[in-house]
Amino acid sequence: MNVTVRGKSRHFRTVSFDAERNAVMLIEQRLLPHKFAIVSTRDFRETAAAIRDMVVRGAGAIGATAAYGLAQGVRAFRGCDFRKFSAHGEAVYRTLKAARPTAVDPVNAMDQVRAAMRQGETIEEQQSLALAAAEEFAAEDVRHCQDIGRHGVRLIRNGMNLLTHCNAGWLAFVDVGSATAPMYAAQADRKKFHVYCDETRPRSQGATLTAWELAQQRISHQIIADNAAGHLMQRGKIDMVIVGSDRTLGRTGEVANKIGTYTKAVLAARHGIPFYVAIPLSTIDWNLKSGFDIPIEERHESEVLGAWGARGNPKVETRSPNREIRHGKENRTSYIRVANPGSGACNPGFDVTPAELITGIITPAGIFKPHELWSRRKELGF
Amino acid sequence: MNVTVRGKSRHFRTVSFDAERNAVMLIEQRLLPHKFAIVSTRDFRETAAAIRDMVVRGAGAIGATAAYGLAQGVRAFRGCDFRKFSAHGEAVYRTLKAARPTAVDPVNAMDQVRAAMRQGETIEEQQSLALAAAEEFAAEDVRHCQDIGRHGVRLIRNGMNLLTHCNAGWLAFVDVGSATAPMYAAQADRKKFHVYCDETRPRSQGATLTAWELAQQRISHQIIADNAAGHLMQRGKIDMVIVGSDRTLGRTGEVANKIGTYTKAVLAARHGIPFYVAIPLSTIDWNLKSGFDIPIEERHESEVLGAWGARGNPKVETRSPNREIRHGKENRTSYIRVANPGSGACNPGFDVTPAELITGIITPAGIFKPHELWSRRKELGF
Repeated sequence: MNVTVRGKSRHFRTVSFDAERNAVMLIEQRLLPHKFAIVSTRDFRETAAAIRDMVVRGAGAIGATAAYGLAQGVRAFRGCDFRKFSAHGEAVYRTLKAARPTAVDPVNAMDQVRAAMRQGETIEEQQSLALAAAEEFAAEDVRHCQDIGRHGVRLIRNGMNLLTHCNAGWLAFVDVGSATAPMYAAQADRKKFHVYCDETRPRSQGATLTAWELAQQRISHQIIADNAAGHLMQRGKIDMVIVGSDRTLGRTGEVANKIGTYTKAVLAARHGIPFYVAIPLSTIDWNLKSGFDIPIEERHESEVLGAWGARGNPKVETRSPNREIRHGKENRTSYIRVANPGSGACNPGFDVTPAELITGIITPAGIFKPHELWSRRKELGF
Repeated sequence: MNVTVRGKSRHFRTVSFDAERNAVMLIEQRLLPHKFAIVSTRDFRETAAAIRDMVVRGAGAIGATAAYGLAQGVRAFRGCDFRKFSAHGEAVYRTLKAARPTAVDPVNAMDQVRAAMRQGETIEEQQSLALAAAEEFAAEDVRHCQDIGRHGVRLIRNGMNLLTHCNAGWLAFVDVGSATAPMYAAQADRKKFHVYCDETRPRSQGATLTAWELAQQRISHQIIADNAAGHLMQRGKIDMVIVGSDRTLGRTGEVANKIGTYTKAVLAARHGIPFYVAIPLSTIDWNLKSGFDIPIEERHESEVLGAWGARGNPKVETRSPNREIRHGKENRTSYIRVANPGSGACNPGFDVTPAELITGIITPAGIFKPHELWSRRKELGF
């Protein structure tokens, strides 16, 4: 999507590849929204570090980063010993996989790259096929998000007030995003609408990342405290809710997403407000039989007990994440303790919304009722 | 309630009076939870400034502060001209009333003090009666909170997990508090229970004031993000909700309270969890006919866009608020901008919970269903 850099609006992807320099280019998400910087990783180890250290986050984005990282790694191989080349490729794969061990997207993405490589007979052919496959993975991620937008756009009518929670925007994918895709499509159709962004404590991704995205795209929006949505719904100020999902159960239609999503679904149901979940198909889990089986990560209490923030204006710079930013003084966000120093916190990171509260699930293949996912699993790729 | 000062637990009231020095003594609430300090105001103008500048907040607490401030002002009069004494008393009254012009409690409290003064015939008698009436106002506030505790304590059973929102604790009153009163009574009865404190963004009074109170009283508690209560209820981890109220409609049983209260009531109703509101009788508004007529204050967006916090350990000091603290470097809390710098916020400060979502209203006169307030208005003092 577009970002205004030194007064000019330019197109960026969250993840891209510079073939000439054999470098993965990433938006440094840990600096947002206080600073916009593109970082380039010079080798696959730096790419793995960027995934591990949350320079890049979001299912689609880390999938593409790993695919590019694998291509970057195999392209850096010098020599003509095919066995050494294969062993090197395996080491690259393992390093990238270990960067975010619980995530499934990097593995799926790299498996696509490896399958493509097998079509080549020489080292050079395989190197070339690896990059082509990584580019195709990224392009497909973008197409899927655009398809979500194409289906979801008809839900947004002129004059609507939308609510979204956390960040399921283009920063979580290669471009366009999931929950934001219908908004960007509606803007392209010149529809007028307003978006309330839940702050999304404790990590405030709504106030930081989603608000940043919408501001860059010049979409009318306001941040609200997570406490405010109920009151706004009661007063008729919210017409529709669109959120993303970390995992959607294909068998039950239950949706796991950032903590607080369930609360917004309960409130929306009480007020008869449509509640939509926008997802790429890779988010669907066809195995689990109950939302209660989804492990809910208990995160560190410091997230609840304090907040991160900064002063200063956004700047644009290009630099390596490892050298200058990762350990850097450049990261001007600082942590303050908000809560009583003697108190602890309980910090579940996600919650599960039951199917009965969900109006529809917006996928690249169309909009479905939650319970339709299973009956239409063939066309959804299961 | 008790506060641990230099390792020793000592009893404090939020507001008290030092007759010898003719000084109002206040807990400096703007420094909590990062620092505990008692400040004394040397004259009624400083007392008015302390109310205006939020050194003290909460209906009962500012009522008692104004009552003491009026006594402080008339006691400082020197001379024997009764007309000058009366004019001086009128000036003190107006100054204290203007300190928080929309609040009703300071006016009610000072009217009680003035009514008592009229029983005296000499300046000296009136000065003495003023202080006695202010002390009686404060003592009555404490008794009412204790009565709330006495009625509410039977709701708390051993092993329960409670949820509370914002701060309706002793810091908002002279002592004991409203929503916290049943908890302190249950602790005195040696019941075991755990309290989840909603952080209560944007001003985080749950994470700061309520958590501080419970920590000082050694009541088991944890702070949660406002987003987390729904998930905890879904997983059976909350047995009861107790909150306070800024205004309760006697005709309808609707409750206006800090933004987010309504959301917790909706969630509690969905999960069949009892939802109680604890109030002194002065909180009941017998005139308004609908919650939609309650004006909802739209507060400054900076509250949502950032956060206040600090480093360092709590200390105890006694000092004048005007000289050393109000403009002070001593206030070690600082503001950081959390949100995207280009984005604005919408910040309603309160919301209205309908009677249908409220299990009971805990008053000093007993526990009532919301719709019973009107039919029993005679015994509730209307």
